[in-house]
Amino acid sequence: MHSIDHIGIAVNSLAEAVPIFAALLGQNPSAAQDVPAESVRLVFFNGSAGRLELLEATGDDSPIAGFLTRHGPGVHHVCLATSDLDSALRRAEAHGIEVIEPKIRTGADGKRVAFLHPRSTSGVLIELAERSA
Amino acid sequence: MHSIDHIGIAVNSLAEAVPIFAALLGQNPSAAQDVPAESVRLVFFNGSAGRLELLEATGDDSPIAGFLTRHGPGVHHVCLATSDLDSALRRAEAHGIEVIEPKIRTGADGKRVAFLHPRSTSGVLIELAERSA
Repeated sequence: MHSIDHIGIAVNSLAEAVPIFAALLGQNPSAAQDVPAESVRLVFFNGSAGRLELLEATGDDSPIAGFLTRHGPGVHHVCLATSDLDSALRRAEAHGIEVIEPKIRTGADGKRVAFLHPRSTSGVLIELAERSA
Repeated sequence: MHSIDHIGIAVNSLAEAVPIFAALLGQNPSAAQDVPAESVRLVFFNGSAGRLELLEATGDDSPIAGFLTRHGPGVHHVCLATSDLDSALRRAEAHGIEVIEPKIRTGADGKRVAFLHPRSTSGVLIELAERSA
């Protein structure tokens, strides 16, 4: 049984997008985190089931900057939680699902994560995040 | 506190996409449902937190057919659960968020649902679904 850890949403500007989602959800987000290696600044809206993550580019080399140029703002990825990332990747690859290199990365909150290529998953960039027991 | 009810993913073909997600998630989906008014056939993958919904067009007049033509397969909408849809819509509109007409519809499983226009929510088509207590 899967669980949705979060949905990552690319935004042009956190300053503009945060008040909209705060109004919609009736709550405030977490403090902003920077991920300098990806040139991304992000906040989470915690929920009772699944979080929303707003992602802003902090440099032109950011994958979020590239996404915004190609698509405009919108859903960037879906993150599913897994208790065993290595097994999940072996199962995915055995079914022809493509894992993006480098396969294992360090994601938000220091979790072990991996990304599956949208061309093998009906156009959805899927992140798998290992949730400690 | 919000909760993610499901993520709706537009697919070219359930016959192709279901085996991929079944392999990835290690589970089988629900039986397919038809929504003739929208020319859509769908399945759900139930999860411990949030469901994945795969949506296939069953006619050229389907909103899913239009989405596939414009974007190709991928995330179509994000559905958030609410205990009181009318209040949620009043709060959204008070903050300038646009509700798509007709405002209240009957969605999958017979729930009362509404859709928020992506141009007012950072490019994300958001469905609000009333969850009975």
